[in-house]
Amino acid sequence: MLSNEALLTDLYQLTMAQGYEKTGLANREACFYLHFRENPFKGGYAVACGFAQLAEFIEDFHFTADDCAYLTTLKTAQGNPLFSADFINSLASLTLTIDVDAVAEGTVVFPYEPIARVKGPILQCQLVETALLNLINFQTLIATKAARVCEVAKGPVAEFGLRRAQGPAGGLLASRAAIVGGCTSTSNVEAGRVFDLPVSGTHGHSWVMAHESELAAFRAFVEVFPDNSTVLVDTYDVLKGVRNAITVAHEMETRAQRLAGIRIDSGDLAWLSIKARELLDEEGLDYVRIVASNDLDEYTIQSLHEQGARIDSWGVGTRLATAWEQPALSGVYKLCAMRSADDAADDAAGDTVGGAADGDAADDATASRAAGGGRWMPQLKVTEQVAKATLPGLLAVRRYFDEQNIFVGDMIFDERMTPKDGLIIDPFDDLRRKNLSSYSFVGLLEPFIQRGRLVGTKMNALQARQNTHANLKRLHPTNKRLLNPHSYPVGLEHSLLVQRDTMLRQAHPLD
Amino acid sequence: MLSNEALLTDLYQLTMAQGYEKTGLANREACFYLHFRENPFKGGYAVACGFAQLAEFIEDFHFTADDCAYLTTLKTAQGNPLFSADFINSLASLTLTIDVDAVAEGTVVFPYEPIARVKGPILQCQLVETALLNLINFQTLIATKAARVCEVAKGPVAEFGLRRAQGPAGGLLASRAAIVGGCTSTSNVEAGRVFDLPVSGTHGHSWVMAHESELAAFRAFVEVFPDNSTVLVDTYDVLKGVRNAITVAHEMETRAQRLAGIRIDSGDLAWLSIKARELLDEEGLDYVRIVASNDLDEYTIQSLHEQGARIDSWGVGTRLATAWEQPALSGVYKLCAMRSADDAADDAAGDTVGGAADGDAADDATASRAAGGGRWMPQLKVTEQVAKATLPGLLAVRRYFDEQNIFVGDMIFDERMTPKDGLIIDPFDDLRRKNLSSYSFVGLLEPFIQRGRLVGTKMNALQARQNTHANLKRLHPTNKRLLNPHSYPVGLEHSLLVQRDTMLRQAHPLD
Repeated sequence: MLSNEALLTDLYQLTMAQGYEKTGLANREACFYLHFRENPFKGGYAVACGFAQLAEFIEDFHFTADDCAYLTTLKTAQGNPLFSADFINSLASLTLTIDVDAVAEGTVVFPYEPIARVKGPILQCQLVETALLNLINFQTLIATKAARVCEVAKGPVAEFGLRRAQGPAGGLLASRAAIVGGCTSTSNVEAGRVFDLPVSGTHGHSWVMAHESELAAFRAFVEVFPDNSTVLVDTYDVLKGVRNAITVAHEMETRAQRLAGIRIDSGDLAWLSIKARELLDEEGLDYVRIVASNDLDEYTIQSLHEQGARIDSWGVGTRLATAWEQPALSGVYKLCAMRSADDAADDAAGDTVGGAADGDAADDATASRAAGGGRWMPQLKVTEQVAKATLPGLLAVRRYFDEQNIFVGDMIFDERMTPKDGLIIDPFDDLRRKNLSSYSFVGLLEPFIQRGRLVGTKMNALQARQNTHANLKRLHPTNKRLLNPHSYPVGLEHSLLVQRDTMLRQAHPLD
Repeated sequence: MLSNEALLTDLYQLTMAQGYEKTGLANREACFYLHFRENPFKGGYAVACGFAQLAEFIEDFHFTADDCAYLTTLKTAQGNPLFSADFINSLASLTLTIDVDAVAEGTVVFPYEPIARVKGPILQCQLVETALLNLINFQTLIATKAARVCEVAKGPVAEFGLRRAQGPAGGLLASRAAIVGGCTSTSNVEAGRVFDLPVSGTHGHSWVMAHESELAAFRAFVEVFPDNSTVLVDTYDVLKGVRNAITVAHEMETRAQRLAGIRIDSGDLAWLSIKARELLDEEGLDYVRIVASNDLDEYTIQSLHEQGARIDSWGVGTRLATAWEQPALSGVYKLCAMRSADDAADDAAGDTVGGAADGDAADDATASRAAGGGRWMPQLKVTEQVAKATLPGLLAVRRYFDEQNIFVGDMIFDERMTPKDGLIIDPFDDLRRKNLSSYSFVGLLEPFIQRGRLVGTKMNALQARQNTHANLKRLHPTNKRLLNPHSYPVGLEHSLLVQRDTMLRQAHPLD
């Protein structure tokens, strides 16, 4: 579905690309990283999602003859061609050779840490930026929302937000991400097919309205679908609807069938579910499950549980598929390192990193010469606020965990400077430190794409859901709280902190 | 882009469809209408959008062999096939014969009134529901947001939300809807190509970071793009960036070129734009325009104007492309009428409408017999709240306007009961009435699709934008206010009110 989408980009990526071509920078190797600055929904974590689509996008990336023909038509305000024929020809023959290291889908991730790192010719790194952000931002947002909903729901959660989702493919990816986050099924049939997801659904109000009476509608429905039917009881009056469902359930029993459930889609779900449960139980129908829907999210579900609502499973639509409270994750993609132009610049780079350990920098420089430049030089964007400053270096992440396998903290480091110990330092308050030396760790970014081809594991949605589940089990409950969650420790390794602070001071001299 | 998407639906539409097939209701003619209950963003209006995509969806609608093969694989919880072979075969040969009447794209629309009406075999009406809601809800939402932004912005507004949009095609349709709502251009190249939209964009922070210095980056950029260049001045320090832009602008003047603008993407946009304007003007660069971006929306733009910010044009991304404050329009699609099964039921229908005028009902009944049923019977969904009750009848809308062409009120009526006068009555407070008899009116719903084929005008985005602009000019300024806008009068024609109230009382007897 994402093949052949090279034009799914902001125009400025193409204008910059032409600029890089003309100024000879196009093949200079660069390193970008994707991160976000705040957990969505004021929560304690995010669930990384969208990498399978990213792999497809990159593997299929090419400019078609149509794409090139379209670019030829674009003009400047003065009526001149925006792009040169040479540049457009270079796009036509472009094959991506970038490398992507990324976290596995379903990994819990936190602010400021790289969740993906892209290395390659700067022109190519820029051409994939917009699609990469689009795919990862949106699916990570929805997977996170789904994880929050499923954490509090306890019972199965079905996603059915397609009718309110942001466009058809917005709905398609929302359904996939909802499953990755923990949902049991989706109503979206196309998503079911494309991503091999479990689909579910029964009937709507119009089915009831199209029949002579609600009872007739229920009878007709269970006749057509004797297996696993759930009837919608709120078209006219919920408790009368429950009584009609009871009649039908008893009729089914005479045929050795069972009514699977009733769904309530309006009114006070706490009161109505308790009343409905009583009515069903009085009739010996304790096996009939109660499904609730109607603008639900993690907060309403938590509140319903606190009120003793008797709801067995949940349908969640709009607020999940659009991430209602915060419909965008502010993930950004920033340059963190670039090869120097030549050996002379290498020395400057040495200065810039403030004497930081250079580990295998020598090998690195040798290997890189052919690949468009000299030694890696860390880069940062400063801006007026330190919170918006980026991290400079070939960034990597280690995740530490204790003997119970619970995650205890993440370290961001520059892979050219092997960490000497497990000390992590808060990037905005260097008095906040934590020593993780006694814990085990794993690297979080794994090779995913190399020279434009998939080398890592492209998970399907159900595999990714399993990983989400395993990750959430390893996250401390206080990090998963809805209200004011405990902040998970993410810090900089000491040499990276020095590197960043040195560069920040150079950029903001006290002049 | 929306061809061949018959499976883009909630599963329950297909289960209901199989139910209609098996119970013999499938070809009974039904009428559904699309409406929403509240203006988005607490505003005074919405801009209808998405009908071009709806037409494409309906014209291309068919179940492919792959679709059918997929449906064959679906199972009930008990492991039986969910859909019968007969039903799947009937889908394989299905061609839509529905009629759609709709408002023109770019029309301003209001709560409770039908913005589209779908008539045809009930099975078909249900199969298009989810996609219709998805397409119209989302684009209407974004076009409305764009209209609000553009109303306050005054200068040109460029949309560049793709990287935060809800999926790739979410971004694609968001870009189109943003143009329909009034935006001047989009950064989304694919949307530019697919929908023939004006595209715009210059460079990002990485361009600056990839060069030795900001000044070198600006010089390189205007050398590649001497026409109409805008440089981004906030990578390191905005006012230093402005000074570098001034240097470059003067250098361009020596080559008889002009720097088009500077863009500020962070910091206090009011203060920085005023300072930047001063610096530019002192240097005789009054022609260099100032572009602002950074999480803008209609409220921040209005506030910037109030503070005297010197901003000439605007880049609006995330908050526009995701409709930040309210990421979904709660449009719903409800059954409002259905043919009776036979003549006997016709009499019952006569009772149900409470003796309402039956106009051309006789012709109607004759013409309809072949088309799957007898006389049209109004239908409504009641629920526990009158605000969620739907309107029963073959609904139509008249829009009244005064001598200055300003819209003064909309009447919803049942087209079987020709309005006797211009009296409209608030559906929730029958003491609120307005007599529009002295004004001219037009019908708002026009034939758009007949028997599955386009018969109306499918507007392109620029035509629709023109219609939006013309509509907004006819809307009173008090209806366009951001804060507590004047509520636009939408009421029921008297016989429709009687019909609804009679049916409501029948459904809720005082027993």
